[in-house]
Amino acid sequence: MPEPDVITSLQNSQVKQLVRLRSRREREAEGVILVEGARELSRALTAGFLPLAIYTCDALYSPEAVEVERVLPDPRVRLSREAFEKVSGRENPDGLLATLPAPSPRLPVPEADTFVVVLHGLEKPGNVGAILRTADAAGAAGVIVLGRGADAYSPNVIRASQGSVFAVPVASLSEEEALTWLAEHAFTRVACTPDAPHVYWDAPLTGRVALVLGAEHEGLPPAWRAAELPVRVPMRGAADSLNVATAAALVLYECVRQRR
Amino acid sequence: MPEPDVITSLQNSQVKQLVRLRSRREREAEGVILVEGARELSRALTAGFLPLAIYTCDALYSPEAVEVERVLPDPRVRLSREAFEKVSGRENPDGLLATLPAPSPRLPVPEADTFVVVLHGLEKPGNVGAILRTADAAGAAGVIVLGRGADAYSPNVIRASQGSVFAVPVASLSEEEALTWLAEHAFTRVACTPDAPHVYWDAPLTGRVALVLGAEHEGLPPAWRAAELPVRVPMRGAADSLNVATAAALVLYECVRQRR
Repeated sequence: MPEPDVITSLQNSQVKQLVRLRSRREREAEGVILVEGARELSRALTAGFLPLAIYTCDALYSPEAVEVERVLPDPRVRLSREAFEKVSGRENPDGLLATLPAPSPRLPVPEADTFVVVLHGLEKPGNVGAILRTADAAGAAGVIVLGRGADAYSPNVIRASQGSVFAVPVASLSEEEALTWLAEHAFTRVACTPDAPHVYWDAPLTGRVALVLGAEHEGLPPAWRAAELPVRVPMRGAADSLNVATAAALVLYECVRQRR
Repeated sequence: MPEPDVITSLQNSQVKQLVRLRSRREREAEGVILVEGARELSRALTAGFLPLAIYTCDALYSPEAVEVERVLPDPRVRLSREAFEKVSGRENPDGLLATLPAPSPRLPVPEADTFVVVLHGLEKPGNVGAILRTADAAGAAGVIVLGRGADAYSPNVIRASQGSVFAVPVASLSEEEALTWLAEHAFTRVACTPDAPHVYWDAPLTGRVALVLGAEHEGLPPAWRAAELPVRVPMRGAADSLNVATAAALVLYECVRQRR
């Protein structure tokens, strides 16, 4: 017989709510995000974010989950394996899932020598997550998501970023707000484009730099394409042979190199 | 009524064979690979690989598939939508799939100033595919896969590489064969490791360079870790905050920069 304090029913209201929260609309309506997995949850806690509720299933714990579980705050809600698998968004859940208040948008403080990332129309969670992860590693001051583009806190982006999304200030702005903010603080907008005259390592990337990234096959709209500083990543082979997250990493680390 | 020359039965022997070929063991036993998708197939043809058989389903064609289909050699085998979805490895197939003879292993000709990639124990198709894609874009002379690691021609790697795997010479070697070949041709083996004294942009990466990449959490075995040239990618935040394919891109493009 299951222990009395373990939720086993798939009809339980909390189970049903967690399933509903897999939809972006539902998360936005409730003002919460879903954080699943030991590493991701650990990074969120390290960054100071506090869970609303923590759901666990010890039968599913990975070794990392066992470690993280020890430092999680109370109270936790225990789910049966079946119930946890129902609410999980993963093929192999590790038994940890939490709801958190949706992080407030944070714009970076624009120091004199700083670089940020602007995402325009990027939709693939794998790319957005990879860019957030690299932005964190490279020490970017923040990431600006334009319009109704990617949801930086969707479960798939959180996962692809391995939780790095919690370590970097992220703000969603309209295109106009972003252009205004960048202009006010005299950021140089840098965009990767195949026909730019300068290769990225020859471009001056010190001072305030905003790397503007568009979707791979669509590119940037004219207002953004008229960047102060177009740069090119040299490529052998087909023009689309470099992934947008890879190109982003090259330019971000060139920002780091030029600041060494 | 279906047209007589369209395979509709899921019990058809070709349909059953294509499903079997989703297994690496079956592909190796038959000496064939599966290439799915317009872009991937197009890249394979551009690189001179010839299909054994081409399977199509025009009801599923993407705009790109319509273009590619025009230049495909005959004969084609037409499948019903249901049959194609059965043999496809994708959620949204584009109606093109082919079998090709497994590409022969190709070791790059070791020119004086050349760089190659060595993959040790990398398993995730997304990472292997991303590295192949970047190796192609950066102009690496070849990719060596060690032992029974990743299958460079698995459907998932082909897809993650967007077909770039066909543009780069790839060879599977045992660890010993690889160490011997690299030593014979006086390659400097470069490995990324967090405690290396030199940052990658300060390391001399001209001449013959082999970038050796290990799995993210396991790293390289001692014989390989004793690299001539350990390099470090500087990182803010957690030590594992950079994906192996991202670190590879940074070092590969540093090879390009130092050859400009």
